[in-house]
Amino acid sequence: VLLSDPEAVPESGIGRLASPPDPLLFALLYREQFHRDAKEVLPWLLRVDAAHVLMLAERGILLPEVAASLLRLNRDLSARVRHGEVVLPAPASHRGLYFVYERYFIDHLGGDVGGAAHVARSRNDINAAITRLRLRQELLALLDDGGELLRVALALAGDHSATVMSGFSHFQPAQPATFGHYLGAVTCELARSLALLSASWAVVNRSPMGAGAGLGTSFAIDPARTAALLGFEGAAGNSLDAVASRDYAVHVISPLALLGTTLTRLALDLQMWSSRAYQFLGWPDPLVSTSSMMPQKRNAFVLENIRGQAAVLTGALTSTLAGLKNTPYSNTVEVSSEATSHLWPAVAAAGTAIRLTTLMLRHILVDGERMRTFLDQEETTMTAVADHLVACHGLSFRVAHEVVGRLLRENPPPVSWSPGRVKAGLEAILASEAGHAVALDESELGQALDPVACACAARHGGGPAPEGVRDQLARLEAERCDLAERTASRRRRVEEAAAGLAQAVEALLKI
Amino acid sequence: VLLSDPEAVPESGIGRLASPPDPLLFALLYREQFHRDAKEVLPWLLRVDAAHVLMLAERGILLPEVAASLLRLNRDLSARVRHGEVVLPAPASHRGLYFVYERYFIDHLGGDVGGAAHVARSRNDINAAITRLRLRQELLALLDDGGELLRVALALAGDHSATVMSGFSHFQPAQPATFGHYLGAVTCELARSLALLSASWAVVNRSPMGAGAGLGTSFAIDPARTAALLGFEGAAGNSLDAVASRDYAVHVISPLALLGTTLTRLALDLQMWSSRAYQFLGWPDPLVSTSSMMPQKRNAFVLENIRGQAAVLTGALTSTLAGLKNTPYSNTVEVSSEATSHLWPAVAAAGTAIRLTTLMLRHILVDGERMRTFLDQEETTMTAVADHLVACHGLSFRVAHEVVGRLLRENPPPVSWSPGRVKAGLEAILASEAGHAVALDESELGQALDPVACACAARHGGGPAPEGVRDQLARLEAERCDLAERTASRRRRVEEAAAGLAQAVEALLKI
Amino acid sequence: VLLSDPEAVPESGIGRLASPPDPLLFALLYREQFHRDAKEVLPWLLRVDAAHVLMLAERGILLPEVAASLLRLNRDLSARVRHGEVVLPAPASHRGLYFVYERYFIDHLGGDVGGAAHVARSRNDINAAITRLRLRQELLALLDDGGELLRVALALAGDHSATVMSGFSHFQPAQPATFGHYLGAVTCELARSLALLSASWAVVNRSPMGAGAGLGTSFAIDPARTAALLGFEGAAGNSLDAVASRDYAVHVISPLALLGTTLTRLALDLQMWSSRAYQFLGWPDPLVSTSSMMPQKRNAFVLENIRGQAAVLTGALTSTLAGLKNTPYSNTVEVSSEATSHLWPAVAAAGTAIRLTTLMLRHILVDGERMRTFLDQEETTMTAVADHLVACHGLSFRVAHEVVGRLLRENPPPVSWSPGRVKAGLEAILASEAGHAVALDESELGQALDPVACACAARHGGGPAPEGVRDQLARLEAERCDLAERTASRRRRVEEAAAGLAQAVEALLKI
Amino acid sequence: VLLSDPEAVPESGIGRLASPPDPLLFALLYREQFHRDAKEVLPWLLRVDAAHVLMLAERGILLPEVAASLLRLNRDLSARVRHGEVVLPAPASHRGLYFVYERYFIDHLGGDVGGAAHVARSRNDINAAITRLRLRQELLALLDDGGELLRVALALAGDHSATVMSGFSHFQPAQPATFGHYLGAVTCELARSLALLSASWAVVNRSPMGAGAGLGTSFAIDPARTAALLGFEGAAGNSLDAVASRDYAVHVISPLALLGTTLTRLALDLQMWSSRAYQFLGWPDPLVSTSSMMPQKRNAFVLENIRGQAAVLTGALTSTLAGLKNTPYSNTVEVSSEATSHLWPAVAAAGTAIRLTTLMLRHILVDGERMRTFLDQEETTMTAVADHLVACHGLSFRVAHEVVGRLLRENPPPVSWSPGRVKAGLEAILASEAGHAVALDESELGQALDPVACACAARHGGGPAPEGVRDQLARLEAERCDLAERTASRRRRVEEAAAGLAQAVEALLKI
Repeated sequence: VLLSDPEAVPESGIGRLASPPDPLLFALLYREQFHRDAKEVLPWLLRVDAAHVLMLAERGILLPEVAASLLRLNRDLSARVRHGEVVLPAPASHRGLYFVYERYFIDHLGGDVGGAAHVARSRNDINAAITRLRLRQELLALLDDGGELLRVALALAGDHSATVMSGFSHFQPAQPATFGHYLGAVTCELARSLALLSASWAVVNRSPMGAGAGLGTSFAIDPARTAALLGFEGAAGNSLDAVASRDYAVHVISPLALLGTTLTRLALDLQMWSSRAYQFLGWPDPLVSTSSMMPQKRNAFVLENIRGQAAVLTGALTSTLAGLKNTPYSNTVEVSSEATSHLWPAVAAAGTAIRLTTLMLRHILVDGERMRTFLDQEETTMTAVADHLVACHGLSFRVAHEVVGRLLRENPPPVSWSPGRVKAGLEAILASEAGHAVALDESELGQALDPVACACAARHGGGPAPEGVRDQLARLEAERCDLAERTASRRRRVEEAAAGLAQAVEALLKI
Repeated sequence: VLLSDPEAVPESGIGRLASPPDPLLFALLYREQFHRDAKEVLPWLLRVDAAHVLMLAERGILLPEVAASLLRLNRDLSARVRHGEVVLPAPASHRGLYFVYERYFIDHLGGDVGGAAHVARSRNDINAAITRLRLRQELLALLDDGGELLRVALALAGDHSATVMSGFSHFQPAQPATFGHYLGAVTCELARSLALLSASWAVVNRSPMGAGAGLGTSFAIDPARTAALLGFEGAAGNSLDAVASRDYAVHVISPLALLGTTLTRLALDLQMWSSRAYQFLGWPDPLVSTSSMMPQKRNAFVLENIRGQAAVLTGALTSTLAGLKNTPYSNTVEVSSEATSHLWPAVAAAGTAIRLTTLMLRHILVDGERMRTFLDQEETTMTAVADHLVACHGLSFRVAHEVVGRLLRENPPPVSWSPGRVKAGLEAILASEAGHAVALDESELGQALDPVACACAARHGGGPAPEGVRDQLARLEAERCDLAERTASRRRRVEEAAAGLAQAVEALLKI
Repeated sequence: VLLSDPEAVPESGIGRLASPPDPLLFALLYREQFHRDAKEVLPWLLRVDAAHVLMLAERGILLPEVAASLLRLNRDLSARVRHGEVVLPAPASHRGLYFVYERYFIDHLGGDVGGAAHVARSRNDINAAITRLRLRQELLALLDDGGELLRVALALAGDHSATVMSGFSHFQPAQPATFGHYLGAVTCELARSLALLSASWAVVNRSPMGAGAGLGTSFAIDPARTAALLGFEGAAGNSLDAVASRDYAVHVISPLALLGTTLTRLALDLQMWSSRAYQFLGWPDPLVSTSSMMPQKRNAFVLENIRGQAAVLTGALTSTLAGLKNTPYSNTVEVSSEATSHLWPAVAAAGTAIRLTTLMLRHILVDGERMRTFLDQEETTMTAVADHLVACHGLSFRVAHEVVGRLLRENPPPVSWSPGRVKAGLEAILASEAGHAVALDESELGQALDPVACACAARHGGGPAPEGVRDQLARLEAERCDLAERTASRRRRVEEAAAGLAQAVEALLKI
Repeated sequence: VLLSDPEAVPESGIGRLASPPDPLLFALLYREQFHRDAKEVLPWLLRVDAAHVLMLAERGILLPEVAASLLRLNRDLSARVRHGEVVLPAPASHRGLYFVYERYFIDHLGGDVGGAAHVARSRNDINAAITRLRLRQELLALLDDGGELLRVALALAGDHSATVMSGFSHFQPAQPATFGHYLGAVTCELARSLALLSASWAVVNRSPMGAGAGLGTSFAIDPARTAALLGFEGAAGNSLDAVASRDYAVHVISPLALLGTTLTRLALDLQMWSSRAYQFLGWPDPLVSTSSMMPQKRNAFVLENIRGQAAVLTGALTSTLAGLKNTPYSNTVEVSSEATSHLWPAVAAAGTAIRLTTLMLRHILVDGERMRTFLDQEETTMTAVADHLVACHGLSFRVAHEVVGRLLRENPPPVSWSPGRVKAGLEAILASEAGHAVALDESELGQALDPVACACAARHGGGPAPEGVRDQLARLEAERCDLAERTASRRRRVEEAAAGLAQAVEALLKI
């Protein structure tokens, strides 16, 4: 009568407890969560259950016929779940998906068989395993999306390796640059964050199965086998660590928060440059919005959505760290459910930010002519003029800088800087102030004053000269390919493990 | 007269500007900062300057005699700084350390020589380089401290691989465990954070020199050479990335925040277990405090200081990410000075937390007897009793769990659970409720009820059995050695580069 | 043909744009959001629309018959929405709820009437208004829940004003205390946070309607009237502030984060005291959980869920501040949608934490006897002994403290401290070390050593003596009543405004 | 011999402990802290000590002559501290300032007198009191600085109530506005944050003295008297709350973080508008910087420093909340020292941000002509054209908006929009598409197209019309005056209390 009769024992009559949860507790913690879990957790629970039962059977801990019964029901449920069916009806009261799931097996197979799978395991190691499996899936998607972002950014940068524009610092024109150089710079940081994200795989993809409630088991299980069946790269070494740790949440969210932050910087620059004051950039109608009130509007509002996601990520990182703080190093809901819950909004926000950025880069309209017009109005080549005095006339850079600065001070903008005017001005200052009677060459000065020539000359120190940019992009492209291949090979291994598990189940069922 | 006469040009008369900073600005941003920079930045500025000048001379961009003059003064200043001398007096007004530094060279060598070093460079790449050099130094110290923490934790865990105690979950006794297993679990997470910290080295240790203001240079410099002279592992590929990015701050602070958070969990457990309610642990007088009011007090307050540091780190990570958000991807004080400033309190807090934890672990007093006494009063072996029913009597785990739960429900604590009592109780329930008329073996039940036997049996799934713990610790020790060797070899390379730079300077001065 | 024919103009053919949004954009930003908005935003949009149209009609900006047509459709939609009907079918593509909503009016009433409501308004002020209305509703609920938490906490504290227990500091027994005093202390901080939350009402409950896109309007509208119809306490003074500011999100989340943090402290204490090492507290079966593996378990896991919510709140606060950082002070999606989006998870988490805590306090089981037993084993009255030497024998406190400390040092625990033993020990130390030959009174010492007498004597400085606790609770009860009345009166005003709006609509429709 | 002989008792030989702190502990926690405390804490400790001793004497708990000796030494030390003297030499080892301080009194007055002050108090309530006193001081300074920021911002806004510029949304020109309106909008939010900061005063300015270690005292002290002597507005009601709570840190840092975030928005707008693409704004040389490499540069870098401070504040808020999380509600270093430590960098960062912003607003150079030139090139009056069709020709706004949108779609920029061109275009569209054959008035259209006329017409809904702006500013000015008066009166009360304490000490010493 203990478990065979579903009516005889209340849902929560397990262990020392004899009552269902308090109704308010049920309403606040279990009722809605059940439906989310039935969608997001159940498919993984079935997978973990199958791997565990298989391993138990292989180790002789479960009788073959018991394992077969369990796996047959598991296989059927899995198939129905894959077809979108709701297989577990929610009872009027319960204590969470797992107990409803196990009860389903008991109801269908009886307590002696349906209750047999839970040997040498606990909800603790099962939950820990499921979180890792879900996260692993999300990681692969993020790495794919991130790789595509890199691809589109590098292609755009390549198209604009020779699109000359003003470089900026402190929001002010600095020196001549290229748009491809700018995009390459941002891509460097994105690539570093994605490499860091990719490195989290090794921390995430370890199996906690076998840890039980955190203190292992006396049954001679084979955790490495369970791990392999689930596509994990190995089993956790210490059972308490396996259930108590969620550090991998930080290993994952931290690169995402960093990547999101980089995207805010890119999105700010792009939105500024697309504003009417610059008009360097634009997007076609399907990527801008107008105003319900102002008919002239073309707002690149998507860039604002992108920036908003970074704030989600920074908050998720804070929540995770704050959530872990001052918790016992053992199983606790505070860690296993609560502190871990920030992962899912974080991966969603990161995915959105990455895909929106890719979209905006893919369809960006670049107005190279306006970039040039703007550049021509600014004094971005004055460093080149100073450099010329150093390179060709032997001045020290500081003296040259001071001489050019003096020229600028004496001629407040707007000034039209012809080579002749610069020559006359500099020669006068050099003679009177710096004690250098120098005859400057007007055509050389003309070169120094030409923004395009300047940009092309800046080919040292990782500068924006087109040829240098192309080299930089080639190196980034190689990194991108590495990342893409690593991701693809991981995906392959995960899929092979899933197929292997299904085959092993079939094999056992055939016996 | 331009630069040769220090009186002729106001300190800030560079470029287009003709005035010193506003006095309030000076008071708020420059005055105090100068003294901090003179201590923490100047030694690195001298080093960067020397490497840059050497490279310029080698590339023929500076005349040998100009380079020699600059390097001679640099060498002398460096020596005086190493002896703790204050070498740069603070002018009444200035715009920061760099301009005072350069003015010092101009005052001593004249503008034509003293102003010559600043070719193909900017404060932007210099500042970026100095931050990385400082951080690299801190990283080495943190990795050493972290390695020592691992060493002490593993040694303590090894001493207590067979010290049986109650394992816990949800603050309640769970199953028998060992103290060495607990310490091993925490060390697993610490080791993962330190490995992540160690991986940041490759991101941190890249040279931005040559990037200038962010847009490279037309001078045919050799950034790889400058990088090598400074012990960097290579030069940045893109000059804008070199000055605009500070992502490495997140690469460093994030593992520190995670590590700090793990330490809060350890410190909470240790403080709870050292409280009068447990008395598992203690520390000698020099590591506890009393109260100015309550003479009986022995407070393990250091654990509270440790936990406080984690909050510093979480905040520093938040500050860094928030500081980077929505900034242009180019040089800006908001990034290069402000967002980067959180690094130093963070590394200090992490160092304190690590060293205090090491200290507390080194001197911990473990009372194995009280651990055993506590364990004997709790019902932590009831899972083992259920496991026994499964392993020896063929019950499904859920039925066995339910049977034992029923026994406990019928006998509310305090109960003295003799094997005989358990045998009688279980047999009755099995017969009446579960339909299993089973004769249990009292001596086997006695084994299941014995916490020490239980702990020793838990040798699967990474459990706390002493032999398993020793294996786990051996694997962690191997990781620790790897980390220590990697750190030592990095330190060696850094020191060799410093020596190489000094030798190259001497060689040039000898010519 | 412009708007009267729904087929003639694509959904997004407004203003200068002629295309629907990019399909990926639609998928990422609009598709799912529409259904959420249809549930959470539409009811408020109808309300705002009605108030605006009424005001326009009253000011003669809309013709009465146009206003009547609009309001009639609005009233019908509102009624259907109240009955849970889905009234706005989602088009295959669209640019968000508002445009679909307006299109619905145009389809039903023609462009000349259906498109008439949008004069002197924009989505910007409408969205701003709706966020405030939603938040106001949440605020009332939170203040009610918070008031109930105070009520239950104060009732429990009142029940235990004389339940003597050990006070603690640094996790160690300190001096005798009462459980009611502890609960009163925590309630003080909760009451302060709720008062701060309550103060946010004045910032939240202001109407942005009339601000348009942020730059007001030339139509002679009456923003105060719209505000009154919506139950706002006034209209925003500056139109740009009205649409650009979301500071009220911080005004609301910040007290919630603080309150959540206080609840973590309470929940940690309660969980520690309910652990087997203390057993001061417990909860009935419906509020604890067992383990799927360990049948003896009774985990007060709800306290862990409570603590998890605080981390949500800290993260939401961080996200909001990071989200607002470096945004233009004008309308931007980054602020109006993104940075504001953290409000809803925050209010949900706070509501959950508050209600779960109330539940746990309501059903708590307090074991006063175990509290006393614990107290009797600890040396918490040693300060009282020192105080006795000061009060009755004229020693300075530091000398008295030192004398008692010496006694304790010479008699390491466990010691059974009878008055006679203390008398003999102290007299010896006083004579030999402190030069005070004093005869102590054994019965007075007995009083000082008695924890209950100590707790009752601690009636100064806000101490735990039962009578003092009752006074403290009475003051808190007065604060609680104030808060409850303020909340009730606000709710009344909001409901009256809703009724007034409905009546005004009816009145206009009757004409 | 106990305390009278400084050599007889080791520094830390208090209570049960007999050893000085571990040397590493001393190095990490005490050594440097002592010097900071001697500067920042000691003056307040002397003040608290004086008030406590006075109260004890008044209540007859201390003999008058004992109190007089203590107060005389206190008065002398206070005077020397006020003169900048270092009065407490740091011993080779110690356990923090308080014990060194008390030892100083014992050394000078003997143990019977020098050790007498510590009755009915503990370091816990003393530390809590000192933190509140320090913070109160900082609060007054911040409220003064904040008031001055409001004053300067309002003055500037007043100067520019009629300076017409483009309003913006989504970084794009929106409708005509005024610079004074923009400044007024930002000032609204600043004023709300300062009001919230001001409200924290009531939470901060409560006295914890009398709470002892958190559990009150049996001595019949008068906490209200101590509170009054220290200028507090009352004594804490519950002694445990008095020492365990630091919620006021969040009450203070939260408005500062919000205020800092608002300043980032202002600083971003100002820096964008001062960039060469806009040139609306500028600053004189003393407030901009140039580049060490680019002689043409004028960087408004101070705005970047301002924005950096907001990140400090967001991090400090996170640190404080994370620091408080999961701590016992009782005295703990984790709260009283660690979580509270973030206050001081936060108030410093806020002060810097506020004062730098004030400085930048005070010296801002506004180029109204460039604001107009920019406005003339943009289509910011198109909403006014649509409004005209509504107001004068009876179109519904949506139809009018669509008609104008159509006109814009058919005439992509750049277009020179003369009234005649608009008239012809609109009439054609109205006739063919909207079925409205309307004759438009060219001179009325000219009004609608004129940005200045538009800005002046926008006088409803809090819009930017100069007269409306002046009204808005007048209301803000009234709020500012309230704040300034409230701050001044608080400062007065604090100063009066300090004077009253000094007089009471003198009076007692005269007896």
